[in-house]
Amino acid sequence: MHEPVDLAATLASFDEAWSPRTVAVLNDYDVRVVKARGEFTKHRHPDTDELFVVLTGSLTIRLDDADVTLGPGRLYVVPRGVEHQPISPDGAEVLLVEPSTTVNTGDTPGGLTTERQVI
Amino acid sequence: MHEPVDLAATLASFDEAWSPRTVAVLNDYDVRVVKARGEFTKHRHPDTDELFVVLTGSLTIRLDDADVTLGPGRLYVVPRGVEHQPISPDGAEVLLVEPSTTVNTGDTPGGLTTERQVI
Repeated sequence: MHEPVDLAATLASFDEAWSPRTVAVLNDYDVRVVKARGEFTKHRHPDTDELFVVLTGSLTIRLDDADVTLGPGRLYVVPRGVEHQPISPDGAEVLLVEPSTTVNTGDTPGGLTTERQVI
Repeated sequence: MHEPVDLAATLASFDEAWSPRTVAVLNDYDVRVVKARGEFTKHRHPDTDELFVVLTGSLTIRLDDADVTLGPGRLYVVPRGVEHQPISPDGAEVLLVEPSTTVNTGDTPGGLTTERQVI
């Protein structure tokens, strides 16, 4: 009990890309870590904003009208309903905060859709 | 528009301890940064959990039955209603996520209570 989460150790414990792990719960929100590598599905979350905080590497969030590129220590909130495609040619480790019911591929289920994984 | 938040630059823009700045909004939650230095007020948030992610330095969250000490890249969620006292003898920079209505000193208003500051 009272054990803090070590983000680097958690991220070192798995290798799968685009497969978020829930490391903590804040009310009805999840705090998740994910490894980004290559291109993710273009999708929307119709009912929620989504917070991205880059921990290592570089993540680009491709929007209809712009690319938002985040390095370590940069964060961005994708507003609800806004189509976005996370991409990371060279890899990134990312902290996400979003409602616990949020599915990674939002309104666009497919091969990269994952179940909620709490560790 | 579409400008990411640079956490280090934001933290370099002010020096006041225990005075959270809201850097982004996620639904009805705030993403805040705060400089911890010395001892904060012992308090509770009766209605919400509170997420602490340490960015730099070392933060101890003193609970009734334990001290939780967080270095960079460590996170901890203080459950709603749990009395806690953040302390940082040598200073820390911390990311917080909590409902936008959350007051920093919770149920224990005093000299360190601040208004919500959105930057």
